[in-house]
Amino acid sequence: MTLQDKLTHIGQAARAASRAVARASTRDKNAALIAMANAIRNQKEQLLAANADDRATARAKGLDAAMTDRLTLTEKGIEAMAEGLEQVAALPDPVGEVTDLKRRPSGIQVGKMRVPLGVVGIIYEARPNVTADAAALCLKSGNAAILRGGKEAIRSNQAIAACVKQGLAAVGLPETAVQVIDTTDRAAVGYLITMPEYVDVIVPRGGKGLIERISREARVPVIKHLDGNCHVYVDSAADPQKAINIVENAKTQRLGTCNTAESLLIARPVAASLLPKIAAMLTANGVEIRGCEETCALVANAKPATIEDYATEFLAAIISCKVVADIDEAMAHINQYSSAHTEAIVTENYTTALRFLREVDSASVMVNASTRFADGFEYGLGAEIGISTDKFHARGPVGLEGLTSQKWIVLGNGEVRG
Amino acid sequence: MTLQDKLTHIGQAARAASRAVARASTRDKNAALIAMANAIRNQKEQLLAANADDRATARAKGLDAAMTDRLTLTEKGIEAMAEGLEQVAALPDPVGEVTDLKRRPSGIQVGKMRVPLGVVGIIYEARPNVTADAAALCLKSGNAAILRGGKEAIRSNQAIAACVKQGLAAVGLPETAVQVIDTTDRAAVGYLITMPEYVDVIVPRGGKGLIERISREARVPVIKHLDGNCHVYVDSAADPQKAINIVENAKTQRLGTCNTAESLLIARPVAASLLPKIAAMLTANGVEIRGCEETCALVANAKPATIEDYATEFLAAIISCKVVADIDEAMAHINQYSSAHTEAIVTENYTTALRFLREVDSASVMVNASTRFADGFEYGLGAEIGISTDKFHARGPVGLEGLTSQKWIVLGNGEVRG
Repeated sequence: MTLQDKLTHIGQAARAASRAVARASTRDKNAALIAMANAIRNQKEQLLAANADDRATARAKGLDAAMTDRLTLTEKGIEAMAEGLEQVAALPDPVGEVTDLKRRPSGIQVGKMRVPLGVVGIIYEARPNVTADAAALCLKSGNAAILRGGKEAIRSNQAIAACVKQGLAAVGLPETAVQVIDTTDRAAVGYLITMPEYVDVIVPRGGKGLIERISREARVPVIKHLDGNCHVYVDSAADPQKAINIVENAKTQRLGTCNTAESLLIARPVAASLLPKIAAMLTANGVEIRGCEETCALVANAKPATIEDYATEFLAAIISCKVVADIDEAMAHINQYSSAHTEAIVTENYTTALRFLREVDSASVMVNASTRFADGFEYGLGAEIGISTDKFHARGPVGLEGLTSQKWIVLGNGEVRG
Repeated sequence: MTLQDKLTHIGQAARAASRAVARASTRDKNAALIAMANAIRNQKEQLLAANADDRATARAKGLDAAMTDRLTLTEKGIEAMAEGLEQVAALPDPVGEVTDLKRRPSGIQVGKMRVPLGVVGIIYEARPNVTADAAALCLKSGNAAILRGGKEAIRSNQAIAACVKQGLAAVGLPETAVQVIDTTDRAAVGYLITMPEYVDVIVPRGGKGLIERISREARVPVIKHLDGNCHVYVDSAADPQKAINIVENAKTQRLGTCNTAESLLIARPVAASLLPKIAAMLTANGVEIRGCEETCALVANAKPATIEDYATEFLAAIISCKVVADIDEAMAHINQYSSAHTEAIVTENYTTALRFLREVDSASVMVNASTRFADGFEYGLGAEIGISTDKFHARGPVGLEGLTSQKWIVLGNGEVRG
């Protein structure tokens, strides 16, 4: 069988299984998730052994420490995976929810019913826990899943897949409802993302290079996350202490996350009084400041910023900084340089706050809160399949609802159109 | 300037204008729409003259009668265009609506705000009225628009575009908020659908060939409508009179629309008693019946159906027919042959009705109502930019809401992440 035939076969099986998953009861889906969690706990030894094999291969190939760290499954990590499955089981089932039912002049009642997308393809790097996580989110949202993990984790992923299949079998759902691609051939991804007849959406999780390549080549909708070049704008009406606290948290709580602030904008009327204090706090946290001329005049240890700095997601202890005239210049700067992920304003002015909320075109827009809150769990989604930097279908943190759509339902009593 | 440069220039202007349109007040957008309607009425003579030129060219090129009919603007058609603009002005503004605002344990309030998609590209055939209609829907939903009509209507479209620009100018909105491409070069479409940096979504309106080509080649999301192979399933628990009325309306009210029924499924227990009556009604309406063996045994004038017939959107006085065992066989047939546009069941059985609503995977699913109701106006959307046969983003009739997305908003009081 050629690789293309293999992927076609996987796609056809997923399409067929998707109908069974779509009509599965909440009770059955939850029971399958609990059974998967139990299987993962019961087969801890097999999972650890498979993962040890993967790591041995990785070491032999000379993988770096960060990658080996992501690849590693510990006992604690296995327990966390099982708990993750139980948490998804505890979430409300989005499928079948009917909203907006209204009677029309013709007599029919029209409403919307939430439905699964069908078949979800997830492409990710060598983090085995994503296998369990993605399987759970797809199943709970009524979708069949095709999972393609990083080749370094192939044995770990197959061991987790065996647990997932046991969970599905426990409630009589087809084992093909979740398929983990068992080839490390990179060309498999190329087929997976170009089968619109079998795959309804692709969610790539990983580095920017992977995501850009998939977006460029896909013939299927992609829920994608590119950069997180997030801004905090300290307005002239900012509460100074809130400004210091929010910039500190947004920049320094974790340096490497997509919702970390990468750029600070401050209004000229408060720059002289407030920027030196914020800069001192950043310096105390080991953060390098790259600023405009006015910034450098106010902050002794600031370095001059380039245009490139304003466009950069540093993911490091560096922040770009610019003194702006007012909210208009701040928003113009944001709309030019931002990656439309998350932006926050610090202000006590009501009208300025409403303008920022309305006019900044990013997936998350915040008033007087840290950009670090842009997260599915913090937003109460209960789970997160990814964060979308697109506008179409879903923006920002994507939970179970992002893996569903809505169809129209019409309840009639024999009505015909006049 | 090359054609590519021209399209790039149009795209850049649209992107810049989209920010002004996105933050425009409801009052300004409505005033612009009213001003456009007035301009269209005031410039009736110019519109008629431009359209006469288009028709003269079309006649010289030997265009068929149907196409010339679509191309023709009458005084009545011009008044209908103006009224259409006024109707869109009267619709509620979707932009800025905040929903689901909830306080989280961290103290922040999280909600969703409805926002425009940005720049919408609309590609359509030689129907000049679409120019006004599409401009209105894009403006009201806060989007900039790039319109590309059929080349046969180029002078009519430019005349309408002049009225649209006057309306925009009347409230100080940029004239580039709605741009009508003024070249007939077919390659312009190729550039328009491959500029994700300037265009957020493409809505093709026209024949299946056009839509398939655009879907295949686009590098931008497409809201598309392919086939409407719609089914009516007459269940064993159907009310016979409702069944006859609904099949008659669904098949014969208009033969050429996408929500017309193309296939009739009937449950075996009621086939002998009910199918001959339905067939007599269809025959009286001049509809040819192509059926399975059991159909042909019960209906003297029925012709044998091929597999191809079950997969065909006839858009003509032909219906395919099949006797099925029960709802399971009916749904299996629908899921195999349907284009996932609209399906209806006729039944008095509560559980069967709920199963059909839940398990049939089509954009519109109906109980005891004619498939002809699958329409933006009948559903109460007030307007329709198209009907989507996709699942992603929007399914079924797409109104103003389908041209928007939702961003997250966070209202804080200085909260930081712990």
